[in-house]
Amino acid sequence: MGGITTFGETMVRLSPSPGERIETADALDFRTAGAESNVAIAAARLGADATWISKLPDSPLGRRVAGDVRRHGVDPAVTWSDEGRQGTYYIERGSEPRGTNVIYDRADAAVTSMTASEAPTDAVESADVFFTTGITPALSETLRETTADLLETASTTAFDLNYRGKLWSPERARETLETLLPNVGLLFVPERDARTVLGAEGSAEAIGADLRDRFDCEAVVVTRGSDGALASTGAGVVEQDAFAAETVDPIGTGDAFVGAFLSRYVRDASVATALEWGAAAASLKRTIEGDHAVITEGEVADVVAADGTDIDR
Amino acid sequence: MGGITTFGETMVRLSPSPGERIETADALDFRTAGAESNVAIAAARLGADATWISKLPDSPLGRRVAGDVRRHGVDPAVTWSDEGRQGTYYIERGSEPRGTNVIYDRADAAVTSMTASEAPTDAVESADVFFTTGITPALSETLRETTADLLETASTTAFDLNYRGKLWSPERARETLETLLPNVGLLFVPERDARTVLGAEGSAEAIGADLRDRFDCEAVVVTRGSDGALASTGAGVVEQDAFAAETVDPIGTGDAFVGAFLSRYVRDASVATALEWGAAAASLKRTIEGDHAVITEGEVADVVAADGTDIDR
Amino acid sequence: MGGITTFGETMVRLSPSPGERIETADALDFRTAGAESNVAIAAARLGADATWISKLPDSPLGRRVAGDVRRHGVDPAVTWSDEGRQGTYYIERGSEPRGTNVIYDRADAAVTSMTASEAPTDAVESADVFFTTGITPALSETLRETTADLLETASTTAFDLNYRGKLWSPERARETLETLLPNVGLLFVPERDARTVLGAEGSAEAIGADLRDRFDCEAVVVTRGSDGALASTGAGVVEQDAFAAETVDPIGTGDAFVGAFLSRYVRDASVATALEWGAAAASLKRTIEGDHAVITEGEVADVVAADGTDIDR
Amino acid sequence: MGGITTFGETMVRLSPSPGERIETADALDFRTAGAESNVAIAAARLGADATWISKLPDSPLGRRVAGDVRRHGVDPAVTWSDEGRQGTYYIERGSEPRGTNVIYDRADAAVTSMTASEAPTDAVESADVFFTTGITPALSETLRETTADLLETASTTAFDLNYRGKLWSPERARETLETLLPNVGLLFVPERDARTVLGAEGSAEAIGADLRDRFDCEAVVVTRGSDGALASTGAGVVEQDAFAAETVDPIGTGDAFVGAFLSRYVRDASVATALEWGAAAASLKRTIEGDHAVITEGEVADVVAADGTDIDR
Amino acid sequence: MGGITTFGETMVRLSPSPGERIETADALDFRTAGAESNVAIAAARLGADATWISKLPDSPLGRRVAGDVRRHGVDPAVTWSDEGRQGTYYIERGSEPRGTNVIYDRADAAVTSMTASEAPTDAVESADVFFTTGITPALSETLRETTADLLETASTTAFDLNYRGKLWSPERARETLETLLPNVGLLFVPERDARTVLGAEGSAEAIGADLRDRFDCEAVVVTRGSDGALASTGAGVVEQDAFAAETVDPIGTGDAFVGAFLSRYVRDASVATALEWGAAAASLKRTIEGDHAVITEGEVADVVAADGTDIDR
Amino acid sequence: MGGITTFGETMVRLSPSPGERIETADALDFRTAGAESNVAIAAARLGADATWISKLPDSPLGRRVAGDVRRHGVDPAVTWSDEGRQGTYYIERGSEPRGTNVIYDRADAAVTSMTASEAPTDAVESADVFFTTGITPALSETLRETTADLLETASTTAFDLNYRGKLWSPERARETLETLLPNVGLLFVPERDARTVLGAEGSAEAIGADLRDRFDCEAVVVTRGSDGALASTGAGVVEQDAFAAETVDPIGTGDAFVGAFLSRYVRDASVATALEWGAAAASLKRTIEGDHAVITEGEVADVVAADGTDIDR
Repeated sequence: MGGITTFGETMVRLSPSPGERIETADALDFRTAGAESNVAIAAARLGADATWISKLPDSPLGRRVAGDVRRHGVDPAVTWSDEGRQGTYYIERGSEPRGTNVIYDRADAAVTSMTASEAPTDAVESADVFFTTGITPALSETLRETTADLLETASTTAFDLNYRGKLWSPERARETLETLLPNVGLLFVPERDARTVLGAEGSAEAIGADLRDRFDCEAVVVTRGSDGALASTGAGVVEQDAFAAETVDPIGTGDAFVGAFLSRYVRDASVATALEWGAAAASLKRTIEGDHAVITEGEVADVVAADGTDIDR
Repeated sequence: MGGITTFGETMVRLSPSPGERIETADALDFRTAGAESNVAIAAARLGADATWISKLPDSPLGRRVAGDVRRHGVDPAVTWSDEGRQGTYYIERGSEPRGTNVIYDRADAAVTSMTASEAPTDAVESADVFFTTGITPALSETLRETTADLLETASTTAFDLNYRGKLWSPERARETLETLLPNVGLLFVPERDARTVLGAEGSAEAIGADLRDRFDCEAVVVTRGSDGALASTGAGVVEQDAFAAETVDPIGTGDAFVGAFLSRYVRDASVATALEWGAAAASLKRTIEGDHAVITEGEVADVVAADGTDIDR
Repeated sequence: MGGITTFGETMVRLSPSPGERIETADALDFRTAGAESNVAIAAARLGADATWISKLPDSPLGRRVAGDVRRHGVDPAVTWSDEGRQGTYYIERGSEPRGTNVIYDRADAAVTSMTASEAPTDAVESADVFFTTGITPALSETLRETTADLLETASTTAFDLNYRGKLWSPERARETLETLLPNVGLLFVPERDARTVLGAEGSAEAIGADLRDRFDCEAVVVTRGSDGALASTGAGVVEQDAFAAETVDPIGTGDAFVGAFLSRYVRDASVATALEWGAAAASLKRTIEGDHAVITEGEVADVVAADGTDIDR
Repeated sequence: MGGITTFGETMVRLSPSPGERIETADALDFRTAGAESNVAIAAARLGADATWISKLPDSPLGRRVAGDVRRHGVDPAVTWSDEGRQGTYYIERGSEPRGTNVIYDRADAAVTSMTASEAPTDAVESADVFFTTGITPALSETLRETTADLLETASTTAFDLNYRGKLWSPERARETLETLLPNVGLLFVPERDARTVLGAEGSAEAIGADLRDRFDCEAVVVTRGSDGALASTGAGVVEQDAFAAETVDPIGTGDAFVGAFLSRYVRDASVATALEWGAAAASLKRTIEGDHAVITEGEVADVVAADGTDIDR
Repeated sequence: MGGITTFGETMVRLSPSPGERIETADALDFRTAGAESNVAIAAARLGADATWISKLPDSPLGRRVAGDVRRHGVDPAVTWSDEGRQGTYYIERGSEPRGTNVIYDRADAAVTSMTASEAPTDAVESADVFFTTGITPALSETLRETTADLLETASTTAFDLNYRGKLWSPERARETLETLLPNVGLLFVPERDARTVLGAEGSAEAIGADLRDRFDCEAVVVTRGSDGALASTGAGVVEQDAFAAETVDPIGTGDAFVGAFLSRYVRDASVATALEWGAAAASLKRTIEGDHAVITEGEVADVVAADGTDIDR
Repeated sequence: MGGITTFGETMVRLSPSPGERIETADALDFRTAGAESNVAIAAARLGADATWISKLPDSPLGRRVAGDVRRHGVDPAVTWSDEGRQGTYYIERGSEPRGTNVIYDRADAAVTSMTASEAPTDAVESADVFFTTGITPALSETLRETTADLLETASTTAFDLNYRGKLWSPERARETLETLLPNVGLLFVPERDARTVLGAEGSAEAIGADLRDRFDCEAVVVTRGSDGALASTGAGVVEQDAFAAETVDPIGTGDAFVGAFLSRYVRDASVATALEWGAAAASLKRTIEGDHAVITEGEVADVVAADGTDIDR
């Protein structure tokens, strides 16, 4: 089977136009989104085989989620359920000084009751890399256990810390993550989360080295927003600048980074190449509405080669 | 204070355009709706003082609901809560042979924890008529108790049976309703619900008389869709035909009927007049998108006077 | 020069989607419309040379009106003015029992101050037919005089009675029209207006004969909506059934009829042919949003030849 | 492998809103459509494994087509090409007396150069049923040959005559089809096409028997629009009424019929059941915008069981 | 009663999308707006009791205006009129070098005939602060008198100079304002208007002191766009910087400033706090489409506390 | 006759909203565009008589193109054809680092078969200036010949080099252009194209002098994007800075420059004035969606006079 297998919740995403508010909008943009399916979509679009494992309500909303994932070439390995809701989030995009506001309405989603036995074992075990994020164990006690089980089952694992303050406190997050990360081979962590949640200190390089050491990871990728990213591996440190971007929609940028990284990683590209593709995909994602990196290998290669043009005609 | 006070849940309403499906739609029409606020809105727009009692999450979604109600002249008597969701429903409008599909996502709404002590006593006690529907007690055990308490507190009460098969079984509904209806003065009941839930039999007239007798109501209004409506009172039976309508959106038709009926009822209009306004408002509602009867007294009067014209210019 | 010259006001037309109401709509459909430019557009699209005379404010709104007329091949002979507004109307499309509601906001339009000296004499005198409607003299005393002057100046004249109850009373209309109609050669009159305004009586045929006699017209075309139309000429009476139509937007139907009639009339087609094209164009207009008959000669010919098909592929 | 494999062109579909015209519309609805992928989509959504074979330009337009097909669960077996266009069609939806107008812009589509060697042999040979339509061989001489080759290669074949007068004359169509149909096991043919193109005569039943005989088909399904359908098989004739439908968009109705029929056929359902599912899916498709039958097995089963309701809540 | 009472015209606001022009747009964004109701809305949303006095046509357009005001918690004290139009303005949003263009179509609005006797005396007399702007007396001679009368009637008064060059000349404005300002306690004045209209000179501080002296005001707030604002009071001068903002729609920024200022002022907050809330609300308004400050107390408090975040999730 | 006559292809232009991608968009913005009609539109809107010569399919798409051109005051001199497609292009607007992507779908357009004999000789010969661009001869061998013929026929000629790398290679372009340019009086050339295609070297000034010399032009205008433009004439060199602009849509900027330049040039304005109007119109175009310079003489004059204001009300 091989390829990339991700596991997590995908939500319905509802948003008024930029500049409009939920209090007065007459229509909402209707999309779907979830860190783990976002990653699978980016990877699949960049040439990887990708499977996404989750549990969805057997309803038009659940089917919508599966269809959106499938459209981009990801195989949805879904357990259909008659119980539990479809997780939902609302997003009001702001501009300075009004921050973008995310309103989660994801309690009691069908996925929160998903056990390891409901996941297709083969897709986990035989994956070239099994991926999930720190959002999943934050959603329910059951998912915490399932995450732990699947990370143990998989042979090669990747994990994005992805701390969400609206889901749990830094303390609760740390407690859980410290039990999970020893089973993680490749850790992605935003520098800020490393500090807030894991109590890491010092430079990004120091953080990378510290976490790699602490959790015995094969590699730690510290992401730093517009300051780029840095990978700490046994062979040393690789740094990558962010590519400049004029942002249309920032949501999903980190997932595009990880998906593109993994798409090269499973092809045994160098860490430097994987970082470069991650950074390029992230900058492209910023120019696109919605969580999904609706991009092509050619576009990423063009950014990497700095081959952007204003208008191509 | 006086006027009409209603009590119940108001939801966010999300719908793709007619002919589009949730599985593939890119945008959803965004409105709000709830039987009891729909009734208050219809009544307020037709000249009554109207208050709507509920509990909402202190969020943009909750504020949206309150603003929509206020816009039409209803006073929202809202308990703002940090717990509980904003109830939501999705609607896919169908045409033959595909029925319109309503997908409720209303579990754990803030209102489900509302107790009688959270309701403004004055708005209940001093109302000319206090109104709720059979949806409210179906939403939670707490709301069942609150409904019972408020119906006891109020001096004049009206109730629309409004059976929803997606919320409870006919048996459970009947059990609860039989404890509530003895405190109801004016009962609205769709003929079909009277049969399914209350086990009434015979003609609409027989049903009206039976229920009035069984629950000691002042009046029972049996609504019969395109077959009109019928009021059974101590003074006898009054019948009302439905007005012909070319339907744009059928949702909310029954609430427009009740709101218009009550708007005349609190002015001591005759039952015949109240029925006529109810039927006229219901037919007008059918021509308008959304649950709300965005109509005027003049428009209802024109329908009653059969004064429609094709184009008025 | 030749061709058809029309004279009158063209307004901005603002409308919510069908089923939406002005009280709650968030966007309005934005078009332009006016009986006399509608007629010119229908005629031009069906092959006639057409000129439209009017006066517009020198503003984006005025330029919008001129551009829309030009787009369909009509030559706008416009006096640009720094005074006076752009006439506007709002339309809320209804369905039974709620009639479509037209809200005029046309007082003090620039055109209301237009004198005959501001009109291009050549376009009036040399027209194969000069056309205006009963709306124009209703708009201002000045326009009443201008209308009278231009009808006297033109050699061949056509006129659509087009009574608008929101502009003047039947009595005032009759008084004015009785001074104008003696200068009209070809009169179009809705049967209802003939009765209400001109006091005509009897059958449509009797009305046609009576009015032709009374005002010494060359021909009188009595239009009867879904009952078709009838022309009373010196050579006798010609009748024409209406073509069946599934109506999307009824506004502008009468203007399409007149424009198509005139497009054949100036080619010396028979009255029967002109009536047939009028009726066919009217039925096509009903299938199209907006006042304009965005149709082709081929489409009209197909309807006349009863050559409609469900789907042509 | 098994399942249903279809082969043909899928186009981009551009359409103004109903009532708007291409001459004046400011936006076009943007979808994709093609008889053979429509059939695959309907079948896949109703539970069948489905593969669609085609050739697409390696461009955003080509990728859009593949993504839309995949979204509904069909496996797109696409040859990506640097030559040839993306086929396109425009559709202006009409209402009486203006017929719906389809404007093809499909010349030189990438698929027109597709040879049998470019098709995945396995997906053709091992399919439970291989399906294409009379549109495909009409598109190019190369496609005529490819169609012939693939029909020979496949073990079980189905074919929808689908005559398109805008692509070829009845005479040319007949000439080609008479060489292809001997390799067809299951023939779907609109009654009108059977007469126009194949010169069949007599009742629908007679036509079915005649064609089955003439081309030695296992079964011939004669479709008759609102008059239902009829299957002529070795075991006799099975008739099926059409289900009543309020039509939103008629395009794709026939493809939904065939796709649903095949979805049951590959499960060895009886011809009567396959016809019933075909008819039910066709009626459901009519209620949905676009060519695709965005429906579920549950919905079809409800229609078959006559279990429609106005509003389900 | 207490709270804030404002008085003035509210218009319908029609605008094409940014980048579109009135000459070619097919749809217009449909909102309502007016300096005095904007101020009332901002104040009400930030916790103040607010009433807005005006006169509206008894039409769907007039009702739309009242409903929009009510939606945000303002009590509309409206005199409904059968005469006079609904004031309207069109706005084409530009970007450098094309300035945003406002096209007023507000002549003969119903409000222009409003007399002091039509205003609810109680709402004026008992208001904690009565507010209007320099737009109102510019609209008609009658409104000039009404403004003067109400400013005399009210006990505490606030006034925003709000000079509009499209309504009157600086000379005419000055003449009128010099008769009104002696009755104003709290004067808001854009620095540029102070110079152009009132002939003030020197620094902003000097202007504040000069005007306070000249008109015997309690306080003068000089607003300076991106340079902030400054209050000149008996206790000295308070300065406030503007908060940085990425502007979506600048219209209504000044009104948000005043509304937020007054919301704190009527709570006896310090001038410094009122200025800070004014500046924060103004910056938030810039991020929102339309004239209305659809904001919350929490959001203003966050800006004041510099607690913006990019994305809150 | 006089005025400006242009000759070339006009396409349908389809684009998703900025931030949306063709792969996932549900609707496309629908406009028309072509360098030569864009130039005619800009010139006509700025007061010149303008005619546009082309060949279009006799279809709704062809009529749409003609209507759009006419709307802005240009006379479309169109040969209607039953053969050939309507040229089309898709545009995906990007932001850094994703360049705006233009996808041409213009092969086999009706215009590609247009011969000089199909063009109205009078409109070419009697034009004050005849204009076309380097796009036209790139479209087909026939058009190469037609372009050569018409440039020879016309007395005064202008030409914009407009190199399109998606249509031909620099070598092929150079070969053709070197045969055409000797018949060109006024040459517009982007500095980059002069280098890439014509092999010009040195400063912009040197390039202008070189090309004027090489092709014996009356004047050469070298355009340099945000660096402005420069005209090399017999009387010396005139330089013009670009006006600052906040870009909404860059497409069509060069055409607006040329159209405005020509609108002054045919009025015998100085080269300096023509350049200034060109630069001002180009900056205004950037603020407007679509290829067309929907601008007025007043707006251009304001930019030239640096009389922009933020908001004019």
